[in-house]
Formats: sequence, structure tokens, C-alpha cells
Amino acid sequence: MSRIAYVNGRYQPIGRATVSIEDRGLQFADGVYEMIKVVDGRPRDLERHLERLARSLHELGMAMPLTPAALRLIVARVLALNGLGAAAVYIQVDRGVAPRNHAFPKGAKPSLVVTARRPTWPKPAEIEHGVPVITLPDWRWARRDIKSIALLPNVLARQKALEAGCREAWLIDAAGLVTEATSANAWIVLNDGTIVTRPKGPEILGGITRAVVLELARENGIEVVERPFSLDEARRAPEAFITGTGSLVLPVTTIDGRKVGDGRPGPTTLRLHDLYLAHCGLPHRLRATA
Amino acid sequence: MSRIAYVNGRYQPIGRATVSIEDRGLQFADGVYEMIKVVDGRPRDLERHLERLARSLHELGMAMPLTPAALRLIVARVLALNGLGAAAVYIQVDRGVAPRNHAFPKGAKPSLVVTARRPTWPKPAEIEHGVPVITLPDWRWARRDIKSIALLPNVLARQKALEAGCREAWLIDAAGLVTEATSANAWIVLNDGTIVTRPKGPEILGGITRAVVLELARENGIEVVERPFSLDEARRAPEAFITGTGSLVLPVTTIDGRKVGDGRPGPTTLRLHDLYLAHCGLPHRLRATA
Repeated sequence: MSRIAYVNGRYQPIGRATVSIEDRGLQFADGVYEMIKVVDGRPRDLERHLERLARSLHELGMAMPLTPAALRLIVARVLALNGLGAAAVYIQVDRGVAPRNHAFPKGAKPSLVVTARRPTWPKPAEIEHGVPVITLPDWRWARRDIKSIALLPNVLARQKALEAGCREAWLIDAAGLVTEATSANAWIVLNDGTIVTRPKGPEILGGITRAVVLELARENGIEVVERPFSLDEARRAPEAFITGTGSLVLPVTTIDGRKVGDGRPGPTTLRLHDLYLAHCGLPHRLRATA
Repeated sequence: MSRIAYVNGRYQPIGRATVSIEDRGLQFADGVYEMIKVVDGRPRDLERHLERLARSLHELGMAMPLTPAALRLIVARVLALNGLGAAAVYIQVDRGVAPRNHAFPKGAKPSLVVTARRPTWPKPAEIEHGVPVITLPDWRWARRDIKSIALLPNVLARQKALEAGCREAWLIDAAGLVTEATSANAWIVLNDGTIVTRPKGPEILGGITRAVVLELARENGIEVVERPFSLDEARRAPEAFITGTGSLVLPVTTIDGRKVGDGRPGPTTLRLHDLYLAHCGLPHRLRATA
């Protein structure tokens, strides 16, 4: 069965779903997106995703193209048309179609695309053994808090990671501090069990999974500090992990080929992983999906 | 008459010319482009543009989608189909269509779009009086030498410039040095008539007009220095200008509302402007197009 996509008011097979070659998403990366986890037919943390979408659009001088209620209906209809109970939903909004010119066009109607597909959660072996990451200089622009589709730097860094046999790259700023991964936030655990992640700001995307994990940690008596940490500190940390809609809470067990701690997922990471799965309604440690 | 566009092997009215919603240009800004000046039916400096296109693609791990000869034929056909003798030709190449995933897809066919439209050269009044620019922090990524379609930072800076009543923004790096404008290179003239522009490197796009102007200057006894210059130095310079395929050689007469020199286009700038117009086969100071 061909997947069905929503594009600017129409539901159609994804193979025929198109946008104009003068769409500003295509010519200027002048748009933003969200990726949302769906479990048992229910989009998880959807309200937070829609709030972030509105914020990203606001930073680009755009309004939401539809009300949150209308967007929820479109997401539900895309899920139903694709017969998906477990899914990753993609929402993209850009500034619409206009003859090519850097300036914001007057009167252009935003383009809205919504798709859904089967999710690709981390494999059980990735949870069990953790994943390796490489480090790369963070070459992205200065407003990483905007979830824009200008993802070329992320793509190039991710590809380098994959070519090095790693799932992700941790990006390092000019001061030697870790910003985040190419599509996930970066965390370490201190010797006393405190978890550390970079505070929200223009240097990182304010991840929804990041926010949920912070809350879950606080609710469950895990100490939390939001501060930048250096690559050096990460190398000495007993545990490290990443969080993201697609990564969930994923242990990082080597950085640039060097073991983190004893090279195995640590107890704090696995506890947060379990808490997060429970939050999402996903089966414990994903064993059921093995 | 509707404009005709070339898209992946087909010539079609631009209103019906589309790409897939899973085109990586749209979802990741995973592509590059060129804008080429056409005068009297002849694309100017086309070889240099195609060389730069090949270089940009190479930096993204991609090959040219067609031979330069085939690209030349497509450009010629698009010009003929649109009945354009004077034009701006746009060529975009991206990594093609694939289910969304940061990693380079295997076997995807690059997407190629070629369009043409009437050029919008600077107005004669802009040459006569010069144009105002504002300055903004350079928030772009670290590889500005790649002419990528990840132009969101450029769009946002240009829009700020326009809202401030300026044609362009000069972007300033963390050291207070001018990098370039949002779609043009930045230059100053020293008291002794030497022209100064930032050297090629990852900090700026190696403009084709920039390269031509450097050559024309050297051929005509104008001293040239390629080195970074600060905003402070630009404010004290007797002349300033920008160069680009769309801007030609355009005098800059105010920076952040402060006059450059006496606030009028200077002799070195106007001489380079005339030399460049002659190089392109454009009428002297554009008066003929007024």
C-alpha cells in the first residue's frame, strides 16, 4: 500500500505528493518541522510539539498555518489513512510558494506537509550495549533553537558519523563544550548520579524528549543540572546518553572510540530509559519489538 | 505566457513544475545552486559557475548530475522556451528523493531544476546614489564557501535589512570583521585607491563576480589586497561596494546610517562598475535600462 501524505489541503499517495519548485522550503530552507512519536494510535507529547512548532514559526516571522485542533485532526487522519498505530509523524511548514527572492513574499500561503511512517526505534541491542558516537566541530548556524529544515550541516555530520561506524556525532563548540548530537540532545551522568545536559538557548534545540526526561528525573529523585559540559568531562563521566524523538533515551558507550565508564550502559541511563518508555507507553526496553 | 522550467528531464510550465515532498532539497536543504547572468542571449561566466557548482556538489559528496555540455544545452533551451535574451538563470541540484533520513540515501538520483526569468539589475538611481546597508552578526554555518540552499540565515538577515530600508546586510563575524553580504561580497576602497575584500575561505562564498572584479582591477592597474577588514575600517574608508551576480558592482554609501566617505559613490567603485558592465556586455551604468 502506498503511503498517504497530506499536502496543502489534499491527502494523496506519497509518490504523487509534490510541492512547487518555487516553494521556499526547497529554494531557501525557509521552514520548520516537527517529528512526533505515535504509540497505540496516540501521538505522544503532541501539545509540546505543536507549541514548539508555533515558537519556531514565530522566530521566522510566521504564524501557525492552522489551529492546533485542525493540525491534530490532520495528524489523526494521516495515521488512519496509513493504518498506523505506531508511527513517526512528520509535520513541515514553510513560507510557501513565491518567485525566488530572499525577502519574505507578500501574501504567500504557507506550505504544510504531514506524513507518517512506521517508527524505527533503537534496536534492543543498541539499548543493551549502547551506541558509539564520534565528535565533530559544531558547524551549524547560531539559532539551533529554531527547528528549521536548513539541516545540511546536520546531514553532513550524521553521514560522517555513519561512515565512522557510529550512530551519531556529538557536536563540539569553539570552547570545547558539547552542544548536542545531530538530531538528539547530549547528556552525561556524574559520579554521584546527577545528570547533566546543556541548558536551553540558541546553541541547542530544546528537545521535547529532553524536557520530558528532565521532568521524569526530577519526579523520580534523580538530581539534574542544566549546564554545559566539555568533551573532556564527558570522557571522564561514568555514563553518557542521548535523547530524541527517534533515539528515545539511548546509552552512549564510546566517544571517539574510547569507552565511557566501563563501556556498558549505566544504571542511571537505563533507569531513565525505562521511565521514558513508560511515559510513552512503549514496552519495557523494547524487548517486545526485537 | 507562463514561464517554462526544466525539472528532472522535463520542460513544463512553472506553475505545474514540482518536486516530491520527499525531495532532500525540501526536507534537509541538501543541495546547492547557481544564479547566472544572461546578456544578449549569452550566459556570462557560465564556465566558472559550472565549476563552482561542481565544487559545491563535491563538498557535499555529490557528482555533477549531467556533463557541463548537457547543462549548457538545458540552459540554452530554457532561455529559448522563455524567449529571454536577458535573464537570470537558476540551477539547483540536490541529493534527490528518498524516505526521510539524515544519512545519504543509496541510489537516489539527484534532482535538477533549471529556471530563467527577467533579470532585476540594480536601478540606475541605486548606482548613482549608492545603497544603504545595515550590519548584523553573521549567524550562518561554518561552510559558506559551499553555495548551498540552506539559506534561512541569509533570508532572515536580508529581511531585517529590507525592514530597515536597506538593500543588503553586511554580516560581521565574532572578531568584528566583515564577512560578506547576504548574497554579495563586501569590499572597501582605501585612501590610496587600493581595493580590499576578504580572501576566499570557508567564511565567505567565493563569488564569481568577486573573481571577475579582482581580475578586472588587476588588468586595469587598480591595486588589490585580499584580507579581512573590520567594520571600523569600513566606516573610515572613502568608498565601499558589494559585488554579486544580481548586484553587479553596487556602491554602498551608508553603513548603519553613517555615510561612507562623502556619502556618494566614489571614483574607484564607479570605474569597477563600468569595467564590470563592459565585461558582461551590459550598457554603461545601466542608463539604457532605466
